[in-house]
Amino acid sequence: MSAYRPLTASTLIDYLSSLAPMQTRLGGNSADWTAREVSDGNLNTVFIVSGPAGSVCCKQSLPYVRVDPAWAMPLERTLFEARWMQALSPAVGHQIPELYHLDEGLFLIVMENLSTHHVLRNALIAGVAPAGFAARIGEFVGHASYATSWRALAFEDVYALRDLFSRNLALTRITVDLVLTDPYRTDCPRNRWISPELDDLVESLQTDSVLHAAVERMQERFLSSSQALLHGDLHTGSVMISGDDVRVIDGEFALYGPIGFDLGMFLANLAMNAYAQPEHDDWMRDEIALLWSSFRRAYLERWEAGAQRGDMASLTRPASCAAERTRFFQQILHDCAGFAGLELIRRTIGFAQIADYEAGSNRENEIEARRRALLTGRTLIQKAFQIDTIEALLDQI
Amino acid sequence: MSAYRPLTASTLIDYLSSLAPMQTRLGGNSADWTAREVSDGNLNTVFIVSGPAGSVCCKQSLPYVRVDPAWAMPLERTLFEARWMQALSPAVGHQIPELYHLDEGLFLIVMENLSTHHVLRNALIAGVAPAGFAARIGEFVGHASYATSWRALAFEDVYALRDLFSRNLALTRITVDLVLTDPYRTDCPRNRWISPELDDLVESLQTDSVLHAAVERMQERFLSSSQALLHGDLHTGSVMISGDDVRVIDGEFALYGPIGFDLGMFLANLAMNAYAQPEHDDWMRDEIALLWSSFRRAYLERWEAGAQRGDMASLTRPASCAAERTRFFQQILHDCAGFAGLELIRRTIGFAQIADYEAGSNRENEIEARRRALLTGRTLIQKAFQIDTIEALLDQI
Ligand SMILES: Nc1ncnc2c1ncn2[C@@H]1O[C@H](COP(=O)(O)OP(=O)(O)OP(=O)(O)O)[C@@H](O)[C@H]1O
Ligand SMILES: Nc1ncnc2c1ncn2[C@@H]1O[C@H](COP(=O)(O)OP(=O)(O)OP(=O)(O)O)[C@@H](O)[C@H]1O
Repeated sequence: MSAYRPLTASTLIDYLSSLAPMQTRLGGNSADWTAREVSDGNLNTVFIVSGPAGSVCCKQSLPYVRVDPAWAMPLERTLFEARWMQALSPAVGHQIPELYHLDEGLFLIVMENLSTHHVLRNALIAGVAPAGFAARIGEFVGHASYATSWRALAFEDVYALRDLFSRNLALTRITVDLVLTDPYRTDCPRNRWISPELDDLVESLQTDSVLHAAVERMQERFLSSSQALLHGDLHTGSVMISGDDVRVIDGEFALYGPIGFDLGMFLANLAMNAYAQPEHDDWMRDEIALLWSSFRRAYLERWEAGAQRGDMASLTRPASCAAERTRFFQQILHDCAGFAGLELIRRTIGFAQIADYEAGSNRENEIEARRRALLTGRTLIQKAFQIDTIEALLDQI
Repeated sequence: MSAYRPLTASTLIDYLSSLAPMQTRLGGNSADWTAREVSDGNLNTVFIVSGPAGSVCCKQSLPYVRVDPAWAMPLERTLFEARWMQALSPAVGHQIPELYHLDEGLFLIVMENLSTHHVLRNALIAGVAPAGFAARIGEFVGHASYATSWRALAFEDVYALRDLFSRNLALTRITVDLVLTDPYRTDCPRNRWISPELDDLVESLQTDSVLHAAVERMQERFLSSSQALLHGDLHTGSVMISGDDVRVIDGEFALYGPIGFDLGMFLANLAMNAYAQPEHDDWMRDEIALLWSSFRRAYLERWEAGAQRGDMASLTRPASCAAERTRFFQQILHDCAGFAGLELIRRTIGFAQIADYEAGSNRENEIEARRRALLTGRTLIQKAFQIDTIEALLDQI
């Protein structure tokens, strides 16, 4: 463990050369190594370091938000990302990058380099993502959420894991504010939208007390339902893809919460891609249907195999009661619909917006795409608890 | 803080005489003090110590279950009871005893002496409890659950409190096993029932896979819904009463969970009293209706006053949306019904049964009372999520 200092390309190489396993992995002499910064998220610095024998990806926290240095942020977020990788890797295997090394003093993760992969959001915008990718994400959520749930673990183990991630306060505060609250406030300077065209619609969202009560219901779900360890920020920028190989990265927002949160956030990002690029409409609908069916199948597979057995599994045989099983997945779908609605709105008028909207060059189309996201978001939040099938959800989108 | 040793009447007096505030409270000379053991629960030792000026109640954990010394149990349970008192006293005031002193080494609580009060269960069996007592319990649950919820506190404060109580593992394990699991297992030697009369019914409960799936659904609610700080063991033996003064004691099972758990457990104990003493039937129905209406009113009062404002309260004006409010209380009632069902069954065939059943001298009546509890318990667990009003719940009882 080393004292904290923000690393540069050259101090990072010095640091790695002091670690025997990294010497082996990169090969040759550290003088032959190169480090290239690839940071494109909002929060952290990311470098790819390459040597004659191999390469690694290094992610370090800064004491502030990378794209907004006036916004202070505790360093510990990389520790939570590493703990998320450690907690999930037995259940999800190669669906996340391999963690090679963690330095808790430098707040530095060294992990498998995926730079032959593409960030899914970019691949979608470019129209080059292979069809069917969402099946891999559905499986990931199914496996991760089953393995960290009360079905698979004794409650003592779930509590320990839940408490570990409930210290992830700074990033959970970001979610509570940016996703669950700010977009609905008239007085929040972090919000922005295309003006004057969207002014009326934004005003109506920000003054609709019936909508706000429904948002409050979703806040309650997020804050008081702790079904499984979530990724917590599962948008298309948190996925890297190369052909059939689909990886989930960037688990620094991890926390216990409702399973539908991860699914809804991902689904909303697929829908927004289709709004921004209407030629993707059929494709994205297919991906959304796949996301849900693969999630359901993957979760059920683990449940029925019953390899791990937690407290909840001690009474029942997995396949015993179709009615309760239906109820269980329906409730996840309700959450999924509601959180998808929140994601649609916050990515359209909140602090962290998405590049998909700027994919076209036409302002009219962009406004239309954003308008659809806002209207659909509102409907999904309000109707969430009446949406009982994925078809009904697709009908709203 | 002192080294742990189980106290006797005389070593307890020596210990108290070393504390200046206790000298003042009890008055005179410690030679004039008397200590009387009043333990009648399952777990701990309780003494009343009296002096010329006043008296106190002292509760100490033993390293095992008091009524079953072969069952080892960590001492820390009194610490959780004290933390529960500290967490709730600002919100509930004199609805719990005042905490005078905690010794974390002796695992000893010194608190307000309520020995002019009666344990509610005994008062019910003797038919001397004053009508309307359940209103005080409803208020208690309303105030306690509002004050510790996401509506009243920032999520950071809720997480801190939740994590504190999620270390209450030994007692939560008792609930998971004795309330949520064991009664449904054919192979659990802790179960007992009147044989042969109830054999068939018990066997049918223990082999009914549809019931077990519904039990699993309630397990999931208990383990993954963390709405508020619960008492965790709110039966009629955890309430002391003197006229209008109703106090909740014995919070050692405290943990974050679904609000309906406390309400359902209390409600089930009222129903079982009516089964055991059918002449109480109308009375107990009135108390159950009062429990619910007072809970609802007390919670809403705090919500509408909006004195504290947590994350969930930042968007909405309290009275803004009747539909979401209805949904919120309905979901608590669903939980209440399901957990009442679990309590009915576990108090009738599980490890910790209740004295009410032995109130009459007639074996036939006792069997009939127990049979009603088992049948009603099964129905409530299975229909929990269809029970939308307190009248519908009373119809099932
Ligand atoms: N294991 C990896 N291999 C190769 N490149 C990676 C890897 N992890 C991240 N990257 C690259 O670095 C970029 C930023 O990574 P990441 O999204 O984890 O950072 P972040 O700053 O935490 O982002 P956010 O603001 O979305 O939380 C990714 O978009 C990707 O281009
Ligand atoms: N503050 C008090 N003042 C007077 N008597 C009390 C007080 N607290 C408890 N008692 C008496 O001691 C008895 C046992 O207390 P309590 O129920 O808290 O113990 P316990 O062993 O933890 O019970 P359980 O097994 O139900 O958890 C009560 O039934 C009551 O008679």
